[in-house]
Amino acid sequence: MIDPLERWRAYGEKPDYAGLLSFGGVPYTEDAADLEGADVAIVGAPVDDLVSDRPGARFAPRAIRAASCPPGRHLEAHIDAFATLRVLDYGDAAVVPGDPKRSHEAIRALVGEVLSAGVVPIVLGGDHSIAEPNMGACAAEHGALGLVHFDSHTDTGTEVFGARSSHGTPMRHLVEEGHVDPQRYVQIGLRGYWPGEAEFAWQAESGITSIFMHELRAGGLGQAIDRAIAVVGDGPTFLSVDVDVLDPAFAPGTGTPEPGGLTSAELLDACRTVARRARLVGSEVVEVLPEAIGSADVTALVADRIVRETLTGLAERRTAG
Amino acid sequence: MIDPLERWRAYGEKPDYAGLLSFGGVPYTEDAADLEGADVAIVGAPVDDLVSDRPGARFAPRAIRAASCPPGRHLEAHIDAFATLRVLDYGDAAVVPGDPKRSHEAIRALVGEVLSAGVVPIVLGGDHSIAEPNMGACAAEHGALGLVHFDSHTDTGTEVFGARSSHGTPMRHLVEEGHVDPQRYVQIGLRGYWPGEAEFAWQAESGITSIFMHELRAGGLGQAIDRAIAVVGDGPTFLSVDVDVLDPAFAPGTGTPEPGGLTSAELLDACRTVARRARLVGSEVVEVLPEAIGSADVTALVADRIVRETLTGLAERRTAG
Amino acid sequence: MIDPLERWRAYGEKPDYAGLLSFGGVPYTEDAADLEGADVAIVGAPVDDLVSDRPGARFAPRAIRAASCPPGRHLEAHIDAFATLRVLDYGDAAVVPGDPKRSHEAIRALVGEVLSAGVVPIVLGGDHSIAEPNMGACAAEHGALGLVHFDSHTDTGTEVFGARSSHGTPMRHLVEEGHVDPQRYVQIGLRGYWPGEAEFAWQAESGITSIFMHELRAGGLGQAIDRAIAVVGDGPTFLSVDVDVLDPAFAPGTGTPEPGGLTSAELLDACRTVARRARLVGSEVVEVLPEAIGSADVTALVADRIVRETLTGLAERRTAG
Amino acid sequence: MIDPLERWRAYGEKPDYAGLLSFGGVPYTEDAADLEGADVAIVGAPVDDLVSDRPGARFAPRAIRAASCPPGRHLEAHIDAFATLRVLDYGDAAVVPGDPKRSHEAIRALVGEVLSAGVVPIVLGGDHSIAEPNMGACAAEHGALGLVHFDSHTDTGTEVFGARSSHGTPMRHLVEEGHVDPQRYVQIGLRGYWPGEAEFAWQAESGITSIFMHELRAGGLGQAIDRAIAVVGDGPTFLSVDVDVLDPAFAPGTGTPEPGGLTSAELLDACRTVARRARLVGSEVVEVLPEAIGSADVTALVADRIVRETLTGLAERRTAG
Amino acid sequence: MIDPLERWRAYGEKPDYAGLLSFGGVPYTEDAADLEGADVAIVGAPVDDLVSDRPGARFAPRAIRAASCPPGRHLEAHIDAFATLRVLDYGDAAVVPGDPKRSHEAIRALVGEVLSAGVVPIVLGGDHSIAEPNMGACAAEHGALGLVHFDSHTDTGTEVFGARSSHGTPMRHLVEEGHVDPQRYVQIGLRGYWPGEAEFAWQAESGITSIFMHELRAGGLGQAIDRAIAVVGDGPTFLSVDVDVLDPAFAPGTGTPEPGGLTSAELLDACRTVARRARLVGSEVVEVLPEAIGSADVTALVADRIVRETLTGLAERRTAG
Amino acid sequence: MIDPLERWRAYGEKPDYAGLLSFGGVPYTEDAADLEGADVAIVGAPVDDLVSDRPGARFAPRAIRAASCPPGRHLEAHIDAFATLRVLDYGDAAVVPGDPKRSHEAIRALVGEVLSAGVVPIVLGGDHSIAEPNMGACAAEHGALGLVHFDSHTDTGTEVFGARSSHGTPMRHLVEEGHVDPQRYVQIGLRGYWPGEAEFAWQAESGITSIFMHELRAGGLGQAIDRAIAVVGDGPTFLSVDVDVLDPAFAPGTGTPEPGGLTSAELLDACRTVARRARLVGSEVVEVLPEAIGSADVTALVADRIVRETLTGLAERRTAG
Repeated sequence: MIDPLERWRAYGEKPDYAGLLSFGGVPYTEDAADLEGADVAIVGAPVDDLVSDRPGARFAPRAIRAASCPPGRHLEAHIDAFATLRVLDYGDAAVVPGDPKRSHEAIRALVGEVLSAGVVPIVLGGDHSIAEPNMGACAAEHGALGLVHFDSHTDTGTEVFGARSSHGTPMRHLVEEGHVDPQRYVQIGLRGYWPGEAEFAWQAESGITSIFMHELRAGGLGQAIDRAIAVVGDGPTFLSVDVDVLDPAFAPGTGTPEPGGLTSAELLDACRTVARRARLVGSEVVEVLPEAIGSADVTALVADRIVRETLTGLAERRTAG
Repeated sequence: MIDPLERWRAYGEKPDYAGLLSFGGVPYTEDAADLEGADVAIVGAPVDDLVSDRPGARFAPRAIRAASCPPGRHLEAHIDAFATLRVLDYGDAAVVPGDPKRSHEAIRALVGEVLSAGVVPIVLGGDHSIAEPNMGACAAEHGALGLVHFDSHTDTGTEVFGARSSHGTPMRHLVEEGHVDPQRYVQIGLRGYWPGEAEFAWQAESGITSIFMHELRAGGLGQAIDRAIAVVGDGPTFLSVDVDVLDPAFAPGTGTPEPGGLTSAELLDACRTVARRARLVGSEVVEVLPEAIGSADVTALVADRIVRETLTGLAERRTAG
Repeated sequence: MIDPLERWRAYGEKPDYAGLLSFGGVPYTEDAADLEGADVAIVGAPVDDLVSDRPGARFAPRAIRAASCPPGRHLEAHIDAFATLRVLDYGDAAVVPGDPKRSHEAIRALVGEVLSAGVVPIVLGGDHSIAEPNMGACAAEHGALGLVHFDSHTDTGTEVFGARSSHGTPMRHLVEEGHVDPQRYVQIGLRGYWPGEAEFAWQAESGITSIFMHELRAGGLGQAIDRAIAVVGDGPTFLSVDVDVLDPAFAPGTGTPEPGGLTSAELLDACRTVARRARLVGSEVVEVLPEAIGSADVTALVADRIVRETLTGLAERRTAG
Repeated sequence: MIDPLERWRAYGEKPDYAGLLSFGGVPYTEDAADLEGADVAIVGAPVDDLVSDRPGARFAPRAIRAASCPPGRHLEAHIDAFATLRVLDYGDAAVVPGDPKRSHEAIRALVGEVLSAGVVPIVLGGDHSIAEPNMGACAAEHGALGLVHFDSHTDTGTEVFGARSSHGTPMRHLVEEGHVDPQRYVQIGLRGYWPGEAEFAWQAESGITSIFMHELRAGGLGQAIDRAIAVVGDGPTFLSVDVDVLDPAFAPGTGTPEPGGLTSAELLDACRTVARRARLVGSEVVEVLPEAIGSADVTALVADRIVRETLTGLAERRTAG
Repeated sequence: MIDPLERWRAYGEKPDYAGLLSFGGVPYTEDAADLEGADVAIVGAPVDDLVSDRPGARFAPRAIRAASCPPGRHLEAHIDAFATLRVLDYGDAAVVPGDPKRSHEAIRALVGEVLSAGVVPIVLGGDHSIAEPNMGACAAEHGALGLVHFDSHTDTGTEVFGARSSHGTPMRHLVEEGHVDPQRYVQIGLRGYWPGEAEFAWQAESGITSIFMHELRAGGLGQAIDRAIAVVGDGPTFLSVDVDVLDPAFAPGTGTPEPGGLTSAELLDACRTVARRARLVGSEVVEVLPEAIGSADVTALVADRIVRETLTGLAERRTAG
Repeated sequence: MIDPLERWRAYGEKPDYAGLLSFGGVPYTEDAADLEGADVAIVGAPVDDLVSDRPGARFAPRAIRAASCPPGRHLEAHIDAFATLRVLDYGDAAVVPGDPKRSHEAIRALVGEVLSAGVVPIVLGGDHSIAEPNMGACAAEHGALGLVHFDSHTDTGTEVFGARSSHGTPMRHLVEEGHVDPQRYVQIGLRGYWPGEAEFAWQAESGITSIFMHELRAGGLGQAIDRAIAVVGDGPTFLSVDVDVLDPAFAPGTGTPEPGGLTSAELLDACRTVARRARLVGSEVVEVLPEAIGSADVTALVADRIVRETLTGLAERRTAG
């Protein structure tokens, strides 16, 4: 376990852009033993193989960590989560490019490790297909889950383009396999043109609660959250946030944006309220598509190769010596 | 020490975009004891307080790591540097935003730790003012240094805007303080409109060797490197690469770009050659300005806050419980 | 006529990024005979010669098509416009770079072909100067038009920089030439610093109804739309949407953005309502300046949804009729 | 003094992208004698040395000028500020890269020149550390100031990273040095995770009024502005606008963005109201980090409109007086 | 079949940004009957499921078409390929998001249709995994192929991350399955750090010819092309161009860029020479990751010119024949 | 006249990003009387109405000024052009958006003012259509001009899309109207697919010298420049540089980029050589399409250096004279 703040101990804080990259600058570990005594573990799931439009969410766990702000007291809640809870960054699942099946296994295994230690996983996606391993692991630990699902889409297709696995189908499978209890499942923020009547008929039959964007025009999101809390009740509950529930003005970097969504102010307050009032056993944030990371930055790329050539020359010298 | 490859052991490689962020995916440590037995340590110096034009190099160490490629055999040299040398990522110096003096002290201290362990530091800047702490520490360990300096500017101003410390003055001070031996100092790639006659007169007097871009039109960079190797000789030598030595076509992300520079192919080969033929005791790559990192990515930012609100809600629940 | 969906018939849907580029993936034709029996034809007007600030709207028809989403049931209206209406993509007008006069003739001719076949044209601009050929052609077919005009500017200058033709003058000319009935003309979303007293005096005299952004603070857009519907009445009506009516947060890609505008949610609902309640004989979406590919272009994306809401409103009207 | 409009006199207006770059195209001067008889002077403060995260605000004065729109009648206020007030662009302070101390002296001196001529300075930052020289100069002229401060952060740290001078500390020092009267100081838009309990305790003790974003959920910004006007009363008052008070959707180009903020429509109306109802003796817009040209830069654009609303409010006050 | 030029017949040319989107503005068809009598058919393969790093090549066929320039006489070759050859745009293969297996089948089928009509396919990728269906179809028609392969990587891994199918393995499989004759296979532009010794040992054994970037320092690309032509001889030959053979300065939009590559001038001339001197039966351009619109996308632009040079070479060969 | 350096007199230099925006920070004036005694005047021509593809060059004069570097000694020529020559920034011509005819008149008038004062104009375009007013004015003063024309296109169409005025036709008209002497006219850098045989036949007949990119493969640009100097001889000569003569890697921000062009190093040296060896009476840099701020805009940056090399060449000639 490495604590990125250690080197800045004299100042009590660390610049967000410096030091080991971990979520919020919390201690980073890949050792399951370190989970002991923790309350929450951040886990990355850098995959985007199963998207139907723009890929790129594989870069999101790294980008979200880079954008994360340091611990501090919440100005409305008057509480510093990092002081109250012991939060660790448990790194990324061992995903395999181009192989969603093995990637899902790796995600499920890593989330499982966290759960086994009695720790709440918060997973940074990745596309929404990771809901399957995430909630699959949670249900294995806690039984059928309640689900608060913020999204512009229901993600309850039976298949997309003839394929069962997709970022458009996880919720269907999770319900059908008993991991999510449809009576305790509420969708918030639905809008646009997908899915069709068949899917909604199945949802209605299953007992899933859907709250559409247009329903929020009257009562606002506050009432919707009250209703959601009532739906999920006291049982173990998962919070799944697809950032495309936000209007593209607030979250332009996503793969299937749909205009007419929530504002950040609305969603942020809602997430805190759900976490406070429901019994969360896990959470995920998905479908973030960051810009210009890694080899897309041409200058950083050549700087890397400058170092590599230098290293190679040093190695040649060593070998020759 | 954490080895980012560990979780991908089954595949022998790790996707560049996943896992703990370290240079080339090598083991990451912040513990000086781990330096024991290492050959090279990568160190970040995320500062840009002393630039005269565009800032942003503070984001470079993170961006270069994100752009770095995994170990592998060099196709011309037929050698894998990471197999021949033991390379560690020793993290970033504990820099302080807005306080270049303390930041330089932190850089010098961290580079000093590396040198004390008998390890070669390769520093990822940062603006070029870090040459002072970098070479200052090296000279303290190894005595006056030879210097191979790739740049479009000489960086030998006495002061810039009346200030002694600047990214335009480090080489002057290093020579004047005896850390760099001017007889063993060669500049390569100079062009443009800076500095003026006074600085070049001082350089000539001091015995510094300057190779201008226009001199490469005839003989090419190969001859220049031969000359550089002759200048630095067998003594301890530092390699300083300002990416603005490259033409802006090859390195657009830099603060004071100057058209008419080297190509990547030329510079990369030159770096390897210098590292093979000179006795390098340290190196730096500076003035990389990455695009869209951290809080510049609006969607990653709001995703972070979604997690933070969730954490805060969990903490509120805990406190209330 | 080519149906882009044909090759994906086995799946019932086509990826948005693949196949022949047409609006929403509907059949594409340039043959007037194919208009027979259609309800709506999408027409592109890729011109931006007459803008007073940032050009680039010439790329918008292509970008809006690239951002367009496939057919599907509207989640609030419970209707799939593409199932109720027969929609074709009739391609772009034969515009001539640098020659706005001939371009306008080409636009008017192509829109005229659509109207002659009894089909409703929806024109993808282009700068707002295309309102002249668009509504000119509609008025030639249907007589003086009612007009619902979403914009931050009135576009009723007599001339801009001494020129009669401009993206700031079309509405003036359309009224003066009798193509638009000022008693049945309503502007919604006005704000900022243009035009001046003279223009507003003329407007007041002519009987044009202006609804300013600041008037929406109290009653909201819903009341404004009710008022607009009352103004245009039962006669033939045109819907003109300048995306700069949106706040730049929701439509950053436009040439003369004005902060303090509508949200996407507000505008999209309004477009559908107007199309459902008024008797639309034509429509246009203008002043989109694209900068990215597909759904990554937030402004092209919302322009697509403006068209989709309009289509859905038309379909609702058809169904209700 | 040069009047950029001169060459376009025949047209009465000038394209925003052409001619001498000045704010709104008003006359530009660097001669103090020209201040005689002016009402307002725009001053640039292009510094960003003291930021804790993303730099770049040094480019803002130029970018805000490039995004500024020409004179014109405000569509709600029915007044053209540039007709009522004599506005000049007095250029940038003689800042020194990398030397915040001397830069602050230069800013204070230039703002002082403006004040000495009985002119109201509106300063285009720069990072928020410039509040010290700006308000220091105003208080020297007018005595202890009332302050309306829009921001997501209080900027009342005693020190940041052990440094007294920072963009996170100016308000603390201004109060402590008597330049700002805490009883007449109101903060609007606070949210996020900074600062901590100590700072808020000091604020409460001092008598500073804080209005948090979450407090606006109920009453809206209108009530908050009423309260702010009551707090500052009739005395000399400064208006300080940090664009990060806006949600990042509305102002993505800022250094420490915090989701969940104001909309442009809210803030613009508020700025005008404050300028109309309070007795403003100076103003500043800070923390804009530009990335594009002209009106394509959404954040520079909204910063321009903040200034325009302020000017309009001043003009309204003048007219009413 | 639709001829996009039709509506602009009066001018003899069409703006690149207007009209039906087809490669170079040539007639577009999805009807196999139209292939009759054609010489070349452009085919899109919008897939990127099998990449190991940055995805996005799924947008390339559309972007390359948008960047393509209209017919015209080649200023060096003095020939207009579109006048000499009958070129059609045959649209995209019916790829399925997230399902590389079915996508490859669709690509192979569509390329097969082209070949069956005696037409030369030029395929716009897509990631390099499409080499398998492309050359598989060609070999089925023409027997074992010679191959001129421009790339910075050999793409001859047996597997990547334990998976047989990848953009890093197609050439291995094509040789092993007899579709490519290793004695007539030449790789040009290799550099960087991949693959390793095992792959090169297999290559040497198989008789594949590898020309590394560093070998071009002496003789230049001209000699390499002579050697390549000698290697492939008179038999049916395929030209495969991975744009990452270019230096990232010339093709920044690619998924696994490697500094130190070819210039556009070098590659374009080489493509035409190969097409003129070898007997091409098919060609592909792969690994373009678009980010902008039309000719603003530098990488899509150079990809277009790669195709144009290839067409010109084919036309030269035809004329010479 | 305002000298932007004035406020920084204590430091002898001014940050590039601060102070009044003028080219290189030289004195700015709009008063013809100030031209007295000057050697060179920078003039902006912010128009792009007559382009056939991407617009945006209207923003270039401002962007090139923002990218311009301060005075300084040229490291190869050992001369500071600003010390040898008196250079003024004479502002922009009073162009009218959407009205190329009046804009051209304004450009011609302003360039004429400069010439009347015996000063050499260097015009920052704008699209290449401004060559007509620029050289028209010069020829009126100096008689038929020699012309050194760097471009990838000849710009000698008789008309484009049926229009006489275009950025593709100025050179034709200038020759036909006797402003340019075809026997003293040389084009350098031609490549790509335009224009056709008719235009080249006319060129050959007229006696124009064309040097194609492919001709530079053998002898290099040095020989071409020698040939160009011989062609223009001792008479009054104009230097016209279209930045698309550069490869898009070096100048991505241009409207009709053509891969396979010159490097910056080649072009910059050539501009200085022409200015030194020919008798320049005027110059222009055209077709820059800016996209970023200051030196972050690679194309504006190289355009600035084109002007700087031209100035340096003029200064060398003056010194030598």
